[in-house]
Amino acid sequence: MARLRPEEVRRVASIGGGPIGGGWTAHFLARGFDVCSYLHDASEERSFRCVVETAWRSLEALGLRERASLERLRITFDLAEAVSGAEFVQESAPEDLTVKRSLFATLGTLTPPRVVIASSTSGLTMTDIQAHCPTPGRTVVGHPFNPPYLLPLVEVTGGRETAPDAVAWARDFYHAAGKAPLVLEREIPGFIATRLQEALWREALHMVASREATPEQIDFALMHGPGPRLALMGQCMAFHVACGEGGMATNLDQFGPALELPWTRLAAPPLTPELRDRMVDGCNEMAAGRSFEALAAERDRGLVAILKALRAARGDP
Amino acid sequence: MARLRPEEVRRVASIGGGPIGGGWTAHFLARGFDVCSYLHDASEERSFRCVVETAWRSLEALGLRERASLERLRITFDLAEAVSGAEFVQESAPEDLTVKRSLFATLGTLTPPRVVIASSTSGLTMTDIQAHCPTPGRTVVGHPFNPPYLLPLVEVTGGRETAPDAVAWARDFYHAAGKAPLVLEREIPGFIATRLQEALWREALHMVASREATPEQIDFALMHGPGPRLALMGQCMAFHVACGEGGMATNLDQFGPALELPWTRLAAPPLTPELRDRMVDGCNEMAAGRSFEALAAERDRGLVAILKALRAARGDP
Repeated sequence: MARLRPEEVRRVASIGGGPIGGGWTAHFLARGFDVCSYLHDASEERSFRCVVETAWRSLEALGLRERASLERLRITFDLAEAVSGAEFVQESAPEDLTVKRSLFATLGTLTPPRVVIASSTSGLTMTDIQAHCPTPGRTVVGHPFNPPYLLPLVEVTGGRETAPDAVAWARDFYHAAGKAPLVLEREIPGFIATRLQEALWREALHMVASREATPEQIDFALMHGPGPRLALMGQCMAFHVACGEGGMATNLDQFGPALELPWTRLAAPPLTPELRDRMVDGCNEMAAGRSFEALAAERDRGLVAILKALRAARGDP
Repeated sequence: MARLRPEEVRRVASIGGGPIGGGWTAHFLARGFDVCSYLHDASEERSFRCVVETAWRSLEALGLRERASLERLRITFDLAEAVSGAEFVQESAPEDLTVKRSLFATLGTLTPPRVVIASSTSGLTMTDIQAHCPTPGRTVVGHPFNPPYLLPLVEVTGGRETAPDAVAWARDFYHAAGKAPLVLEREIPGFIATRLQEALWREALHMVASREATPEQIDFALMHGPGPRLALMGQCMAFHVACGEGGMATNLDQFGPALELPWTRLAAPPLTPELRDRMVDGCNEMAAGRSFEALAAERDRGLVAILKALRAARGDP
């Protein structure tokens, strides 16, 4: 029952004819895999091919890998045929627990137990999805960010019945397949990226509801403020670098009291010494010995590159 | 008492020797202004010059404007000299109400009333800052995002005593000076961008406090997930485009129930018909008649450009 080595995978099954299934299909094709895509019925084929071809133009611009070809795509309406010979399965069916549960029950029989099956679910847990699967040990969440053929993040986590080695295998496979996998230690609702985005989104809805801002003001603020920086540096390192030599410690010691201010509807956690240390240690680990000057210079080089790219993409002078 | 036309300003006073004051100074120099910078005392000069020179390298890479020169910088330790002849004043003193209040009391006498004085404050309100200013009508908030010489956003708002025309003038001036000004209709704690960022930041602190994620996982998730997209498209339009033809209406109708889910500690507002319409109308206005295909294609072109820029900045193949 030994698994194939993650970098040896050549054949992938992609389940689902929507934008996520189509996006995954295009991504895997661009990385040189043979992909068999399962669509629920023939009426989906046209829009599915359209998603794949649209994605392909961007993937070509980014650079295709050896063997990459749209010719390696097979479309089927038969689930058994889709997974036959597949060395990895990415499921992107509708976000409905009943649908996914029954799909995993079937896939768990159709697919040899050594093959890892990943779900693109954005809001369900693998513990729930795998409940009726006869072979749940190899089932994981592999949650992409939209559009999945461009944004690299894939959040990976197992359910209660998942074997730890399946999670590790999925991480290594996604990495080999050109994605940026992030393994969560435990199942939490909304994973990590969606939780952070959701906090921002709910604050935005509050602001629109109370007429503090319009949707246009919200988008303008994000695009011209934190947006370009978040593309190259997360919020923790952004604050670490913004505070100069003192880094995150200075940030928390100096702006800690601001956590009490009504700058969002979300109350902050108490800034205990443990939390302070965990933030400071985390940033120091990420800095990995680089000086404040080096980090700020890296940030600025990245921002200059992003601002130039945005300017070119918008056709600005 | 007619103000100079915003695009006619040539001389700017920048108050404050920290990273924000230094960043503003560099930005204005790169746009061809004569800048007189006030530092509190001589011990600050070295680090101030270092901030300006570091910023200059990025500004050169982005392209300097006509007349731009480090030679146009004058440094003084005398506040009256700093603002003498200035046609606009940007104040970036320490974030302390007592300090800023007394500074605005003095600046309000030293500077002719037609000159607009803007504060870089990130957390105080202009109503509080202008309380002791004898000429509060021309005082506004002009809140930049860090680093202020690269990120374009400037949030502009007045206090209770501010004349509306001063806010409009500041908006036009920042625009002419190459920034992306965003006028807030009213004073709200944290303005717009900081509020949204703060919601995300507090959720991140909660996750670290409860061991749901490490600072490194949080930064990784942001950089490889929502980050690159937020650089070119705000959260509202990102959801609008992600939902295809149906746009924001589909998003709210389909994912509205998810607002009840514990995907962040922040409870969402009730999704009333009014809120729904305001979100949908706002996105349709931003779309300005462009089709879903056109918007998705724009997004993808921008993402490809950003991903290539990031790859180049990181030295990846």
